[in-house]
Amino acid sequence: MESLKVAGIRLGTTCAGIKYPNRRDLVVIEAAAGTRAAAVFTRNAFCAAPVIVARTHLAAASPRYLVINTGNANAGTGRHGLVDAEASCRSLAERVGCRTEEVLPFSTGVIGEPLPLFRLVAGLPAALAALRADGWTEAAHGIMTTDTRPKWASRRLHLADREVTVTGIAKGAGMIRPDMATLLAFIATDAAVDEPVLQSVLTEAVADSFNAITVDGDTSTNDSCLLLATGQSGANVPAQGEDYARFAGAVREVCSDLAQAIIRDGEGATKFITVQIEGGRDAAECRQVAYTIAHSPLVKTAFFASDPNWGRILAAVGRAGLADLEIDRVALHLDEVCIVQNGGRALDYTEEQGQQVMARPEITIRVELGRGAAAARIWTTDLSFDYVRINAEYRT
Amino acid sequence: MESLKVAGIRLGTTCAGIKYPNRRDLVVIEAAAGTRAAAVFTRNAFCAAPVIVARTHLAAASPRYLVINTGNANAGTGRHGLVDAEASCRSLAERVGCRTEEVLPFSTGVIGEPLPLFRLVAGLPAALAALRADGWTEAAHGIMTTDTRPKWASRRLHLADREVTVTGIAKGAGMIRPDMATLLAFIATDAAVDEPVLQSVLTEAVADSFNAITVDGDTSTNDSCLLLATGQSGANVPAQGEDYARFAGAVREVCSDLAQAIIRDGEGATKFITVQIEGGRDAAECRQVAYTIAHSPLVKTAFFASDPNWGRILAAVGRAGLADLEIDRVALHLDEVCIVQNGGRALDYTEEQGQQVMARPEITIRVELGRGAAAARIWTTDLSFDYVRINAEYRT
Repeated sequence: MESLKVAGIRLGTTCAGIKYPNRRDLVVIEAAAGTRAAAVFTRNAFCAAPVIVARTHLAAASPRYLVINTGNANAGTGRHGLVDAEASCRSLAERVGCRTEEVLPFSTGVIGEPLPLFRLVAGLPAALAALRADGWTEAAHGIMTTDTRPKWASRRLHLADREVTVTGIAKGAGMIRPDMATLLAFIATDAAVDEPVLQSVLTEAVADSFNAITVDGDTSTNDSCLLLATGQSGANVPAQGEDYARFAGAVREVCSDLAQAIIRDGEGATKFITVQIEGGRDAAECRQVAYTIAHSPLVKTAFFASDPNWGRILAAVGRAGLADLEIDRVALHLDEVCIVQNGGRALDYTEEQGQQVMARPEITIRVELGRGAAAARIWTTDLSFDYVRINAEYRT
Repeated sequence: MESLKVAGIRLGTTCAGIKYPNRRDLVVIEAAAGTRAAAVFTRNAFCAAPVIVARTHLAAASPRYLVINTGNANAGTGRHGLVDAEASCRSLAERVGCRTEEVLPFSTGVIGEPLPLFRLVAGLPAALAALRADGWTEAAHGIMTTDTRPKWASRRLHLADREVTVTGIAKGAGMIRPDMATLLAFIATDAAVDEPVLQSVLTEAVADSFNAITVDGDTSTNDSCLLLATGQSGANVPAQGEDYARFAGAVREVCSDLAQAIIRDGEGATKFITVQIEGGRDAAECRQVAYTIAHSPLVKTAFFASDPNWGRILAAVGRAGLADLEIDRVALHLDEVCIVQNGGRALDYTEEQGQQVMARPEITIRVELGRGAAAARIWTTDLSFDYVRINAEYRT
């Protein structure tokens, strides 16, 4: 699917040599005057300098420009890191003639090394010169690190007889267990949306998309997700009702597409695994069980091996920390195959059925807890040789 | 170091063909009449049938015999599993002429397959015929699964002019994040110890040894640790005082040796990593940070690669969930090298220093949180290609 243009948004990408030569690593996104913004950020206590600066700037003004670099996370860089993030905004602001607070910085890459500020600033003129409305795909390339594929998603809908577009790009393949949003997702729409409404649309969309995925359980220091609304379609999104629901649905779908794309491109991933927990007392305990399964190296390596070693899934459920879990009520399905019923192997389950399911590239693990009506669903990857290779060979 | 005999304890090992032919997989341990026992078991809700049966039997009688099989965990096996575990005890009891409750069953191996009860029972005569006081080393072999080395430890001490011995064996290499004790550790002493005292000695010893290690964060369904006291040395251990402390110290050292041996033999392990957290508000939050670091696949793969990628350690500290962590007060050392001070890179740290430390086979990660006086220490492994290979190729 192509990435659809959003009226009022232009994107420019260039090679600034932040870490490697001849690699697209600097992206500027321009939003028309009057654009509203909503954002969610990492909850990692060691959040990166650009996260701190972006939060401060967002509180002071509506953003006109985003400046995004890869190759360096500007995290764990102390006070100097804050100065560097602020300086990159100020340089851009001077160049285009806006306020520093109207520029938001985003960084991704290696943690703990000083940001090469000079190279970033030197790259700004080329990025600005490259600004164009159909720059989404190239920008999706420009924000990649260990990603093997660019990730974008678009939806078009009609609101009050006007055509509205929602387009987003994202990056992320490792250090993925977003606690807010995954490392860098930028979504824009030409709908007109008030900020509180925009924030509630984004928060809801993120909950079941970026906040429901995990590759390795490692919450990044730089996770940021931004939703811009330029208003240039002339279509207004109300605070509730059918048009709100349809717009929120489109944003949710774009976030969901991007989150799934991140999992499909997860470091070393060979399988796309949906973990669906049902019958819990509340959503929190369902998520707890889901993440315990999704983070178990033994479960993940069994999926890599296409081995229906369901005992490992059961062991993960058992250690998830649920008080008074009655194991007699637990059931386990892999796709349509019922493996465990009443806490033990289902009578008609055969190893052949399990092997057949495990050979698939996309598999759903469904666990029924039998103690309530709540449910939760997350997406994750397997754990392969390539995950180890990627993270042992490269300093990302 | 050799494994020292314990008066009143005999061990017999045989090949019963539980899962593979010609592999030592059945061990019987005999304890003299009058032996007292203390035990700790897994807290996994899906605890295995033998764990349930062992708990029930321990509550009813002092154990005279332990029957231990590898190749099958008898976990996730429902009501049939309980019958099988009970039947293996009853068969042994009949053969030797004791009560069924005086026999404790232990199993380790694949989860979810029915215990081959017939083969286990058929192997009992050979195991009983092999009983001998110096059977510790062979028993340590007999309880191995994916372990590459047998694990035993001994201490000798004098109590009230009498010589007392403490000897233990353990197995475990994967599914290691004991929540009580690691999968199968059997320790015996010829000291005379009342059961409440024995239990307190064991509980204390386990807290800083088996309960302070992790390979992959996967708490097993079968973890069991048993401490037997035959009393045959004639030396009595009081409920407190110097002799208590010396005896407890010896048990702690044996547990610590065994726990460290498990980590050194951890699946695919190439490094022995100590995670030491200091300056926390309480021990619980220190452990929380320690386990977050120890379970991070990104930290573990960086250690495998001998890459001083300390940003990954910082990111793990930041996502450990400590309320109001002031990152300005956080410091990080790898062995003697200070890498992070006041939340940022230490001024005189050089990449060469980091690389030098990371090349070592044993490394201590020390994190200072700067918010209290509590501390915690755990041991863990790195994450290597071999971890993935072992768990993808074999159904253990």
